[in-house]
Amino acid sequence: METAPEPLIDQPLYLEVGIHIGTKVKTPGMKRFIYKVREDSLYLLDLNTIDRRIRLAAKLLARYDPKDIVVTASRIYSVAAAAKFAEITGSRIMTGRVMPGIFTNPNRKDFVEPELILISDNRNERQAVKEANKTDIPIIALCDTDNWIKFVDLVIPCNNKGRRSLALIYFLLAREFMKEKGLIKTNEEFQYKVSDFEAKMEAKAR
Amino acid sequence: METAPEPLIDQPLYLEVGIHIGTKVKTPGMKRFIYKVREDSLYLLDLNTIDRRIRLAAKLLARYDPKDIVVTASRIYSVAAAAKFAEITGSRIMTGRVMPGIFTNPNRKDFVEPELILISDNRNERQAVKEANKTDIPIIALCDTDNWIKFVDLVIPCNNKGRRSLALIYFLLAREFMKEKGLIKTNEEFQYKVSDFEAKMEAKAR
Repeated sequence: METAPEPLIDQPLYLEVGIHIGTKVKTPGMKRFIYKVREDSLYLLDLNTIDRRIRLAAKLLARYDPKDIVVTASRIYSVAAAAKFAEITGSRIMTGRVMPGIFTNPNRKDFVEPELILISDNRNERQAVKEANKTDIPIIALCDTDNWIKFVDLVIPCNNKGRRSLALIYFLLAREFMKEKGLIKTNEEFQYKVSDFEAKMEAKAR
Repeated sequence: METAPEPLIDQPLYLEVGIHIGTKVKTPGMKRFIYKVREDSLYLLDLNTIDRRIRLAAKLLARYDPKDIVVTASRIYSVAAAAKFAEITGSRIMTGRVMPGIFTNPNRKDFVEPELILISDNRNERQAVKEANKTDIPIIALCDTDNWIKFVDLVIPCNNKGRRSLALIYFLLAREFMKEKGLIKTNEEFQYKVSDFEAKMEAKAR
């Protein structure tokens, strides 16, 4: 009878990439997203909320012109995943250092005025968060159990450190974005695989 | 040099209606929005965040068709303010009891499928929050220092109990909504006063 939405992906697939596996640190703001603490002291995030927030974020992102969206990433795994998301959706990516005034000082050469920012890890991308907070740019951020969320507007609770977790998150965000935009109709029409969002491993690392 | 936005209204006007004055109770989730505790033990909310979040909420609301927005209110002061907001913006208002399944069960006579929900007080409107949480409807909520925010997606920290505070919040949300929609160009073109959003007092109460 109920039309409550299906999860974006089967639960075992979420669990397999460890999307819910946090860290041993819990910030006060992230407490509400934590389901339990595992025997090895890792905090685990609530899977329903992860799924719901990815969907909400994608719906929200899809209400913007992709040119007005900036995605930030600063570590190998997130850069690979976020870059693929940016490529597919047509949004902008910032992977380097964000300079003071970049969103607020029109005299800067690199001045941009995004309408929405998606942050991969607000500890590493602190400056982007700080700059966006001086403006009225909404901040969506992937947040692990150890992230401080004071300046985040919409939290996507998740493992924002693992290679496969990040790949899956950005895969889902991209796929849902395309569906919400009406650019594809079904999941099957989405021509990318989760592995396309994964950082390529060096041969010797295999 | 910087284009950081002006506050929506002069700071003294915010302070005058007590938009920042919370309660003597502080929930863990609201901690991040609290600026300090006053001598009489009332927690005070950070004014910059209040201002920023009202702006963000209005911008977000304006990305939706007003017909797809539901505003909920359950107490005299919030009902008056929210009803005026709904009237001006063309969104729907729910002031009574929200029934289980209202957003999820298409067989119900009163079934509605909003795209976005704006909650005046999630303690009194718990059922609406609960129902929305079963769906992928984003939940924006006015939250005082004593509100639990577990199921809220975007928090507008504020005094959500005072008559004048509620009137000002919904006045600003409505005005900014109209500007964002391009229906008015300037604040001056907004033909309503804050007092239009205030619950009418009985004569004997004067």
